[in-house]
Amino acid sequence: MSAPGRLITLEGGEGAGKTTHAQTICDWLTARGRRVLRTREPGGSPLAEAIRGVVLADWAEGVDAPTELLLIFAARAAHLHATVRPALAQGCDVVCDRFIDASWAYQGAGRGLPGASLMALQQLVLGDLKPNLTLIFDIAPELGLARARHRGDLNRFEAENVAFMQRVRQAYLDRADDDPQRCAVVDASQDLAQVAADLTQILETRL
Amino acid sequence: MSAPGRLITLEGGEGAGKTTHAQTICDWLTARGRRVLRTREPGGSPLAEAIRGVVLADWAEGVDAPTELLLIFAARAAHLHATVRPALAQGCDVVCDRFIDASWAYQGAGRGLPGASLMALQQLVLGDLKPNLTLIFDIAPELGLARARHRGDLNRFEAENVAFMQRVRQAYLDRADDDPQRCAVVDASQDLAQVAADLTQILETRL
Ligand SMILES: Nc1ncnc2c1ncn2[C@@H]1O[C@H](COP(=O)(O)OP(=O)(O)OP(=O)(O)O)[C@@H](O)[C@H]1O
Ligand SMILES: Nc1ncnc2c1ncn2[C@@H]1O[C@H](COP(=O)(O)OP(=O)(O)OP(=O)(O)O)[C@@H](O)[C@H]1O
Ligand SMILES: [Mg+2]
Ligand SMILES: [Mg+2]
Repeated sequence: MSAPGRLITLEGGEGAGKTTHAQTICDWLTARGRRVLRTREPGGSPLAEAIRGVVLADWAEGVDAPTELLLIFAARAAHLHATVRPALAQGCDVVCDRFIDASWAYQGAGRGLPGASLMALQQLVLGDLKPNLTLIFDIAPELGLARARHRGDLNRFEAENVAFMQRVRQAYLDRADDDPQRCAVVDASQDLAQVAADLTQILETRL
Repeated sequence: MSAPGRLITLEGGEGAGKTTHAQTICDWLTARGRRVLRTREPGGSPLAEAIRGVVLADWAEGVDAPTELLLIFAARAAHLHATVRPALAQGCDVVCDRFIDASWAYQGAGRGLPGASLMALQQLVLGDLKPNLTLIFDIAPELGLARARHRGDLNRFEAENVAFMQRVRQAYLDRADDDPQRCAVVDASQDLAQVAADLTQILETRL
């Protein structure tokens, strides 16, 4: 049996650069001889991607906050069951674009859902699993949204207002403060090369 | 503002006769001048029906118990938001084929998921909402399954073993014992006419 792989999660607001830099991290790990699985949430298995399609679709009836929360945790449960846990068990490192902190930031701080519900869902779905390293891409909402807008269509979350995004940003920073052993904050407003350099520095120190 | 409608739920194992007798109940209410909405779970709104499609589909990766639980509560949240709560608020009676007790019976007793998770989900999704009347169709699993088999294809739940169905049956009976004010048990092994007569008797006493 090989040692279990490490779970590395990328978090932060829209347009911060998570998807762009997931590759930076995968490349760094691969260069060090690690097997790496790159994945994302919501999604990451056929069932979880189907749930992603449902939660991000434009429903005439609307998607109320509890429904959104439950669909996102359902997708996470499927993703962990089918993709993440098997890869970690086989010694693969898993690089995941958004994970549990996104639920606390978006559905908790953003939508105002109660912490007790989030805690119960986290316990049910994650149990004792915890990311080994969480990279929080910190950026002013206006700048991140401008990048995302430049990239193309906005989805339902990206169309939220700046006050919502401010709550999301602050929630991420608070989580980093509360768990500095697991989390590292990256200044994502810098240019691409500098963000990549900061990331590499963090990976070298933490992993 | 009219008085709020009443929520009447039908529960019980496979093939007990819930879907058959939902009509008996709607007819009884309509004959008494009530407006009635007939619905079912999982499902009952376009979004909730999409979730039903996902949870009942045959996924190569499997559907683990937490994923199933969360999808069913996500469908319930959407159903309540889009269909049930608006109808009750307009004074419509709602007759619902399966509801919250099914989660306690199938996902709780059947699949063995922890009561604390179910309680947290119930609190998040239902809040203070409680059915006014829950009709529990009680039948021996073998007889119910024989009826369901006779009706056509078995779904994933109907393909479960008899021990699973026994846990489901007992959980329903326990819930009826714990909340006799809300629940009434119907002997669903009787012939159709006798079940309908017992139902009518219960409706006349309880509503
Ligand atoms: N440091 C940067 N400077 C300038 N542009 C950047 C930087 N990082 C990313 N971008 C660009 O900003 C856009 C958003 O980046 P990316 O898609 O990686 O963000 P994200 O955090 O994954 O966003 P989302 O939350 O919407 O998925 C892309 O067009 C990307 O090329
Ligand atoms: N009392 C009865 N006697 C004989 N057959 C019955 C009786 N009640 C229902 N049936 C038949 O049994 C089959 C299952 O009934 P029905 O679909 O109403 O059950 P159900 O409780 O809704 O099952 P499911 O949980 O699978 O949805 C149907 O073919 C129905 O016509
Ligand atoms: Mg992205
Ligand atoms: Mg039925």
